[in-house]
Amino acid sequence: VTFPLGFRYASTYAGIRKVAKDDLALIVSDVPANASATFTTNRVQAAPVKLAQKHLRDSRGKLRAILVNAGNANCATRTGDTVALETSRAAATILKAPLNQILPASTGVIGVELDARKITKALPELVSKLSPDRFGDVAEAIMTTDTVPKVASAEVSTGGRVVRIAGMTKGAGMIHPMMATTLAFVMTDAMIPVDFLKPMLSVGCEFSYNRLSVDGDCSTNDTLTLMANGASGVALSESSRKLFQDVLNRVLQELAARIAKDGEGARKRVTIKVSGAKTHADAASIARAIANSPLVKTAIAGSDPNWGRILCAAGYAGVEFDPSKVEISLQGIVVCKDGLAARFSEAALKKKLDGKECLIDFRIGGKGKGAARFWTCDLTEDYIKINASYRT
Amino acid sequence: VTFPLGFRYASTYAGIRKVAKDDLALIVSDVPANASATFTTNRVQAAPVKLAQKHLRDSRGKLRAILVNAGNANCATRTGDTVALETSRAAATILKAPLNQILPASTGVIGVELDARKITKALPELVSKLSPDRFGDVAEAIMTTDTVPKVASAEVSTGGRVVRIAGMTKGAGMIHPMMATTLAFVMTDAMIPVDFLKPMLSVGCEFSYNRLSVDGDCSTNDTLTLMANGASGVALSESSRKLFQDVLNRVLQELAARIAKDGEGARKRVTIKVSGAKTHADAASIARAIANSPLVKTAIAGSDPNWGRILCAAGYAGVEFDPSKVEISLQGIVVCKDGLAARFSEAALKKKLDGKECLIDFRIGGKGKGAARFWTCDLTEDYIKINASYRT
Repeated sequence: VTFPLGFRYASTYAGIRKVAKDDLALIVSDVPANASATFTTNRVQAAPVKLAQKHLRDSRGKLRAILVNAGNANCATRTGDTVALETSRAAATILKAPLNQILPASTGVIGVELDARKITKALPELVSKLSPDRFGDVAEAIMTTDTVPKVASAEVSTGGRVVRIAGMTKGAGMIHPMMATTLAFVMTDAMIPVDFLKPMLSVGCEFSYNRLSVDGDCSTNDTLTLMANGASGVALSESSRKLFQDVLNRVLQELAARIAKDGEGARKRVTIKVSGAKTHADAASIARAIANSPLVKTAIAGSDPNWGRILCAAGYAGVEFDPSKVEISLQGIVVCKDGLAARFSEAALKKKLDGKECLIDFRIGGKGKGAARFWTCDLTEDYIKINASYRT
Repeated sequence: VTFPLGFRYASTYAGIRKVAKDDLALIVSDVPANASATFTTNRVQAAPVKLAQKHLRDSRGKLRAILVNAGNANCATRTGDTVALETSRAAATILKAPLNQILPASTGVIGVELDARKITKALPELVSKLSPDRFGDVAEAIMTTDTVPKVASAEVSTGGRVVRIAGMTKGAGMIHPMMATTLAFVMTDAMIPVDFLKPMLSVGCEFSYNRLSVDGDCSTNDTLTLMANGASGVALSESSRKLFQDVLNRVLQELAARIAKDGEGARKRVTIKVSGAKTHADAASIARAIANSPLVKTAIAGSDPNWGRILCAAGYAGVEFDPSKVEISLQGIVVCKDGLAARFSEAALKKKLDGKECLIDFRIGGKGKGAARFWTCDLTEDYIKINASYRT
């Protein structure tokens, strides 16, 4: 896989987190890229989220660089706004870019002051390390409770020429489908006007990050960016935009699914498919209720084909459906038919549920065409262990 | 404490649950009582919930008895409706009551056929055991994953005479504030017309069971009944109805708070107070978001004063407020002031958080008069253990 042209990456350890693991990273486009981003819908927004929104407005969707740190959310702190501004300004100066073309992003603990000097001091080294092949380093540097870096990429052929998309993301807890979720940075070297980027990202987000839940908590720092720097020299025709959208969706879905797989304490990724609802939105609501049910998630942790909990969760999704028409499959085995227990071998299914992937298929009989796919993970003792002591 | 006059209680082991612990119970009023009830808002409703609603409609709010079993929810089964009807009819026959004055209720596993004969066979013994002082036996018989029975009672003096209220409840998981939650049976010997009972129960429920969450799952079987049999001979005057409402609220709150304390795997009860919101409903929404946040609940399990998670949860409650005006106290110690970290001794607070009760006080500065109190519990490894293997 080749990465998009005209982007460079670097990471370093700036001393923000306690363990000596890279915690500061830079993503730079050689030329100002067209960009769009979605942010958390939380009323409490971290300083970098507020500044990032302002910068994108002021620059009318032009972005040279993303400056991102892990280990501190720069949220609910006295100096947060100043820190976001000063570190962005330092990055702009050293990159010779307008301030409003720098997008700051942070992830980590809330309510602890972030020392701007740690970042400004590390910037020269960071810039000196910038390289097109340090993509993976950045994906590692933005990890918090993540156990693996998460990247996805794809190529799109259009008129005999190729454009590239590559994305990275982080997130394992505080994951909930509301607009953007967690941090995700997606780069492409296609030429795409800003006016097209926004709806492209919206659509992509709707079918990926908005269909992802680990614990139902929506963070203060969620940021999802899409940068198109045109370095391929390839402009997308109207027909190729549709193809590009499909591939973008797949990249975003792959990133989102990787987060589900790496959910805090998760042993299993759970994919939930709902079909037969009146609308796609109804199907997504049912899938979301199932995905957010601690009882469903603990049953899956225990390899227990407890379909009653799945039916029950669907029942409080706020969506009208006839329970007596519901068929539920686990790992392809029908466990509930017409809303009632189906005959199946518990022992055999239990074994199938011991694997690392779990598929819940929730079908409502009838004429409804509404369908949705949703990702989550099981809920294990380790989620508790991780989160009962994360801050200290 | 004296219990309401004119009620009798009994429980027995009918072989519904595997362990030989009472699983069938009867609550009988000597005369038809005026009654009101609220039920789960889940679209998937257990057979007894559907029949109970029909009976209350048909009898215009008259109730002679509640027939309740634990160990099987009688939900999503082929024979569910028949089982609920047949067992209710058997109870009506033996009690010489109209069928529609019997309220059936069930709690336990979903999707497993319930054998009606186990119940009808046990009825004669059950009726022979009926006694005014077996109130506690019933409270024990309706337990599932509960570790303690949950009862509360009070007296109300009106015009030199006394009426009594006593309630019992069960529930530890699948607890979420939507209308009624879990099973709760409240009896009083006051004379109260049916027309007054309904709004009384609504109001009481709003400030108790609708302010309670263990895991955010809303069950298929939730049933909360209020029976007033008038056995005291005391009718409530308009002024004493207000007093009665206050005492009823307190009884319901005590029952709800006992559920929070006994939440599955819980080591701590968490009381959340929100004030300064625009409306009471806004305050309740903020409290609910905090109560449902797994990250807040795991932090409390770890005695971690991680107020950032509390602020963050409030931020996604869908309610407008100014984060920079928020003050948060834990155990009476201010940990966040003006939306920022306050100075406090972590070690001292950590110690205070090790206790069995946790108080979160979330105050929004300004003129808002909206306030709410909410109950939940911490989220521990034991919740996972209980629910990963409950069914088997």
